Amino acid sequence: MLGVIIATHGEFGNVLLSTLNMILGDFEGVLSVTLSSEDSRETFMEKMEKGIQEVDPGGKGTLVLVDMLGGTPFNIAVQLAQTRKVEVVTGVNLPMLIKVSSHREETDLKFLAGEVQKATRESIVTSMELFKKQEQT
Amino acid sequence: MLGVIIATHGEFGNVLLSTLNMILGDFEGVLSVTLSSEDSRETFMEKMEKGIQEVDPGGKGTLVLVDMLGGTPFNIAVQLAQTRKVEVVTGVNLPMLIKVSSHREETDLKFLAGEVQKATRESIVTSMELFKKQEQT
Repeated sequence: MLGVIIATHGEFGNVLLSTLNMILGDFEGVLSVTLSSEDSRETFMEKMEKGIQEVDPGGKGTLVLVDMLGGTPFNIAVQLAQTRKVEVVTGVNLPMLIKVSSHREETDLKFLAGEVQKATRESIVTSMELFKKQEQT
Repeated sequence: MLGVIIATHGEFGNVLLSTLNMILGDFEGVLSVTLSSEDSRETFMEKMEKGIQEVDPGGKGTLVLVDMLGGTPFNIAVQLAQTRKVEVVTGVNLPMLIKVSSHREETDLKFLAGEVQKATRESIVTSMELFKKQEQT
């Protein structure tokens, strides 16, 4: 099983994971790593390295879901992706986590990252679109 | 100014709003409405109606950012959109809130919903793509 880390500014990742557990039940091999105001780049990097060791002890690969493009969680995740078996997807939200939870058997990290990106983009819809579709059917 | 409501399962919306305040400072006219395990459809609908009254007392329009397509926050928001000046965008995440915060002067609700959707979709990127772009430049 591939590892999954949610890396965010503040407690956002923890609460997102609790929400997912509330909706779908426990989610194995997933960890939330949060950047607090006391963290430096170095301490956050240490947390991330420990986190990867925990969710992916066998070195099969880790998908890191970060809150946004830019900022320390993203910068450190991308730095790790240059030397380790790590892929990063930005803009973590609930549909992204639901997609990941439905693909826990996937072993191809790059394929998983692409699928998660595609599904998450498609999950961003507006009520205008939905009503238009209803009218057409 | 248009009103903004973040409507989510559990505390996720509150924490997302705190994170945004941590990054960008206070965000006026925005409220988080959370669905707790004690809520029924009716009590959640009441919370949403109160929330809309609070962020949009003049009836100019409210953008409701929900956590996912489906579930009570989405269902109630879409129900409100059928009779009120409300537009809904699903899949709330940090880039979506940042986009909304940069468009607080926008007065066209449908235009805003479309812009927010577009920008949020574009904010979902992978490290694979970013490295590929770097190699090409």
